[in-house]
Amino acid sequence: MNEAVATLEGWYALHDFRTIDWTAWKAADDEERAGALEDLNALLDEWNSVSEAGTGSTATYSIVGQKADFVMMHFRETLEDLNAIEVEFNKTTFARFTHKAYSYVSVVELSSYMAGNSDEDPMQNPHVVARLKPALPGSRYVCFYPMNKTRNLSDNWYMLPMEERREMIRSHGLIGRSYAGKVKQIITGSVGLDDWEWGVTLFSDDALQFKKLVYEMRFDEASARFGEFGAFYVGSLLNGEKIDEMLKL
Amino acid sequence: MNEAVATLEGWYALHDFRTIDWTAWKAADDEERAGALEDLNALLDEWNSVSEAGTGSTATYSIVGQKADFVMMHFRETLEDLNAIEVEFNKTTFARFTHKAYSYVSVVELSSYMAGNSDEDPMQNPHVVARLKPALPGSRYVCFYPMNKTRNLSDNWYMLPMEERREMIRSHGLIGRSYAGKVKQIITGSVGLDDWEWGVTLFSDDALQFKKLVYEMRFDEASARFGEFGAFYVGSLLNGEKIDEMLKL
Amino acid sequence: MNEAVATLEGWYALHDFRTIDWTAWKAADDEERAGALEDLNALLDEWNSVSEAGTGSTATYSIVGQKADFVMMHFRETLEDLNAIEVEFNKTTFARFTHKAYSYVSVVELSSYMAGNSDEDPMQNPHVVARLKPALPGSRYVCFYPMNKTRNLSDNWYMLPMEERREMIRSHGLIGRSYAGKVKQIITGSVGLDDWEWGVTLFSDDALQFKKLVYEMRFDEASARFGEFGAFYVGSLLNGEKIDEMLKL
Amino acid sequence: MNEAVATLEGWYALHDFRTIDWTAWKAADDEERAGALEDLNALLDEWNSVSEAGTGSTATYSIVGQKADFVMMHFRETLEDLNAIEVEFNKTTFARFTHKAYSYVSVVELSSYMAGNSDEDPMQNPHVVARLKPALPGSRYVCFYPMNKTRNLSDNWYMLPMEERREMIRSHGLIGRSYAGKVKQIITGSVGLDDWEWGVTLFSDDALQFKKLVYEMRFDEASARFGEFGAFYVGSLLNGEKIDEMLKL
Amino acid sequence: MNEAVATLEGWYALHDFRTIDWTAWKAADDEERAGALEDLNALLDEWNSVSEAGTGSTATYSIVGQKADFVMMHFRETLEDLNAIEVEFNKTTFARFTHKAYSYVSVVELSSYMAGNSDEDPMQNPHVVARLKPALPGSRYVCFYPMNKTRNLSDNWYMLPMEERREMIRSHGLIGRSYAGKVKQIITGSVGLDDWEWGVTLFSDDALQFKKLVYEMRFDEASARFGEFGAFYVGSLLNGEKIDEMLKL
Repeated sequence: MNEAVATLEGWYALHDFRTIDWTAWKAADDEERAGALEDLNALLDEWNSVSEAGTGSTATYSIVGQKADFVMMHFRETLEDLNAIEVEFNKTTFARFTHKAYSYVSVVELSSYMAGNSDEDPMQNPHVVARLKPALPGSRYVCFYPMNKTRNLSDNWYMLPMEERREMIRSHGLIGRSYAGKVKQIITGSVGLDDWEWGVTLFSDDALQFKKLVYEMRFDEASARFGEFGAFYVGSLLNGEKIDEMLKL
Repeated sequence: MNEAVATLEGWYALHDFRTIDWTAWKAADDEERAGALEDLNALLDEWNSVSEAGTGSTATYSIVGQKADFVMMHFRETLEDLNAIEVEFNKTTFARFTHKAYSYVSVVELSSYMAGNSDEDPMQNPHVVARLKPALPGSRYVCFYPMNKTRNLSDNWYMLPMEERREMIRSHGLIGRSYAGKVKQIITGSVGLDDWEWGVTLFSDDALQFKKLVYEMRFDEASARFGEFGAFYVGSLLNGEKIDEMLKL
Repeated sequence: MNEAVATLEGWYALHDFRTIDWTAWKAADDEERAGALEDLNALLDEWNSVSEAGTGSTATYSIVGQKADFVMMHFRETLEDLNAIEVEFNKTTFARFTHKAYSYVSVVELSSYMAGNSDEDPMQNPHVVARLKPALPGSRYVCFYPMNKTRNLSDNWYMLPMEERREMIRSHGLIGRSYAGKVKQIITGSVGLDDWEWGVTLFSDDALQFKKLVYEMRFDEASARFGEFGAFYVGSLLNGEKIDEMLKL
Repeated sequence: MNEAVATLEGWYALHDFRTIDWTAWKAADDEERAGALEDLNALLDEWNSVSEAGTGSTATYSIVGQKADFVMMHFRETLEDLNAIEVEFNKTTFARFTHKAYSYVSVVELSSYMAGNSDEDPMQNPHVVARLKPALPGSRYVCFYPMNKTRNLSDNWYMLPMEERREMIRSHGLIGRSYAGKVKQIITGSVGLDDWEWGVTLFSDDALQFKKLVYEMRFDEASARFGEFGAFYVGSLLNGEKIDEMLKL
Repeated sequence: MNEAVATLEGWYALHDFRTIDWTAWKAADDEERAGALEDLNALLDEWNSVSEAGTGSTATYSIVGQKADFVMMHFRETLEDLNAIEVEFNKTTFARFTHKAYSYVSVVELSSYMAGNSDEDPMQNPHVVARLKPALPGSRYVCFYPMNKTRNLSDNWYMLPMEERREMIRSHGLIGRSYAGKVKQIITGSVGLDDWEWGVTLFSDDALQFKKLVYEMRFDEASARFGEFGAFYVGSLLNGEKIDEMLKL
């Protein structure tokens, strides 16, 4: 048996993509729409309180193109927390004006490919904890995509010796680090939780950096030979005011 | 011809994933909702009686994310039993508030890769029978996924000699056994019954153990080269009280 | 050019899988339901007459799981006959309570891989005719799946010499024959008629035999290297009484 | 760069597959149905006039199985002509009783693999023109399927030298020619126009010939190694009378 | 790590494919239709003003076949601009008569495979800027398709040395240039933005040139071995008058 790398896990994450039923929204009367917005804003306030209390983090972004109209990204302590959020959203009067578009269930993950040989308990390291329980930044743009490591005949990531995997991940990390200050990246693991092995959530104030970063990485062997990518979702920050503007007729 | 491993089969299983039509549920009046809940609870009571009588086993879990809202897992003696349960559910007034999301038809299976050379009739062995007709545990979390063994050119499980398969399954089993006490696993076979070859149903009180277990196994040759995986569904226990809570407006 | 094996063809077959719209069925009033059942039973009687006259054969089975609620399998002399049956069903008042789930168009086929060097006209042989125009047995269970022969680089069935194909088919047939008395099999060809190359319809009084047979065959080179399989549908006999019982509220 | 074969193109083609909404059709009153049929028959008359004038050709066939209920095949001078036909059909009252099922956009094509070294302008050759602007035959059955030439590692049609491609096409053509008088074939090219590279439309008075022809070709290297096939649609001629019969309640 | 080619980016692009709900359109009364058309024409005027001001470019084409009825192609400075256009369209009364069909998010891209060793800032070069911020031509026909570069074992574009990639792109470009005056091509990059790596939008006054160009390129190694193609959409110019004509009952 090949050696699996050790991982650390933090908050569970639900990426909840939704589409707006504009026909129903326009057919509703002013009172219904006002009630629906009130319900939605109450939820947003509740999620903000959680973010402020540091017991979780939620961010909302619009999505460009027909795949979805917006995404709510929730990071919480347990799967039950995420489930409760879903049910609460579905019970609002606003939910009637939305359809499901896509969702992703995962958990924040740090892998130890790069770890030194420390005896320290990493959960006592505040830098590690901050990465495992991340406050989502209010960047102007977001990019999300799920991915696998390839298992195709001679291109099989999981059959590679640990040392080769470590070297490729190191090279990959160097590219990522060259975007420091331009792109913030959160890796969530979903093996055993959802259909792909990882979810990548990128934040930036310049959407072009998503393209530059992902394109540069694609020439890196870790991606070129061993990266399989799902759908890409890209969008811009949707805070309270922008939601009102989006939904105002 | 290559040698097929012998298998033992027990109860048939139906994993029945459903989505709630929240718009219809919220549009219904109190009386309709009360009637629907009564119908649902009557069914749940009926299934509990079967579980208590030991003639079958049913468990209900919520599902996190948009793939489904909940799953009903039924284990029974015959396919007709499972079919009757489906029809009975579809006839309830509650069913109108749900949509089909996904289902899986299979039968509990033990393979003899690990078997010793015993002359004993395994169906006389109570440990074997308990595994073939398993009482579903009331664990906090569930994880379900279907899988195949790869048949792709040089990576073809079914062309391997029995001895190589046996050795890989042994190694795989060692990982599973290292999670004893943390994860309970039920393997159901679906060759000739549904679209994948096996269904894996995992139970645990710690959802992270699903990720740890499946990830560790992925580096094992049996998975790395020969495992093909379908969609993963993960959720938390949904007993009577929690169902009422979920559906209460 | 490689040598194609000769085939004999008999009746055309339509496997017509349908789902019941339970919400509409429950919303209908007693009179509508009674009228719909009358329409359905008139069709079933008509199909029975055809079966009895030996000019065709029809069988109806329930399907376990969400893929479909039932299947109507029609074997007739011409494609127009099958088309007329579809249209006639769609015009019934019962059809309004169903949705299409899946269908398969094919023609009963015997291949000459195993043929001796006879000068006899096979259509004068009553055993051959009985296999080409088969009366569907009233077995308790049915299993249907479509399949292809692989054409993937070095695993390309159609590039193999006739002699190798014949030998693999012979070995495959031996497995099938070992299930004689337990499983009855009808092979229908669909090259040029539907999306897969063949449809396999199995009948048995013990559903476990479907799993045993298909699993054992999977280790045979003809399946292991060269079999590609579509969706599997499994269900139990749905004669007139059972249809009434299924639809009774 | 490898040498592309020269092609000649004729009429553009739209294969327009539709499903009938039988529930809506049965729910309509006699007057609505009569109006819808009148609209449909007016269109059919218009298309017949075009066929008679030789400025295009249209044929209508029923489709067996659930993929579609009928197909309208239109061959015309320009893409705008095809678009206008679509819009005109969609504006009829009959269109309300149909759903889209599948469509294919292509252009009649002759390739020069088999061409001699003539200096003649092929468009002055009436045999060539008749093949590029074909009057659709009123055969009893039709079969349509789209296809690609494989580009998979060592099985890459487009990397083969012209001479090898020519030889395989020649062998393929010999099979086709052996069905002369039994099957009429129209090849339409769709590179740059639709999702597959070619569409194949076969006409015959004996549906079994579709199976015999496609099956025999599958053992030919051009198909065995280099043919990728989409969905197959098969049906029978649907002239004016048969349309009335199909839609009569 | 392999060397990534440098790229220049210009306007962001949204290809927004829509289907018309003809049943709803025909069921609306004259007043509703007039209001919807007024809304639509106001948007078209607004987009024309942007095109005239040179701060973006929008073109509208009908699409042949069932995939969509029309496409709105928007090129703008930012993702927010594109998002605002979507929301504005969705809020019109016309939007109620359409369904989403497909969309593509990308950004105009020039790659430096062919670049000389100039020290000049390319964004000061008006020819470069005109290609990065292109005024969409009013050509009679459009063709759109998304594509990837293959990453499959020995056919892996991203593992090739820069020099090999450059040579293949050069050869590919020569074909493109031989269509100068016949086909205008806009390449948009979508790595990190949408599901494919590039989108290709072709304009021509002769639809056959799309087929000729794409077919000829398919024999070029860059496409033959390394091109993966998504769906192809083809259609004809839909200016204001033609929209009115299309929607007039």
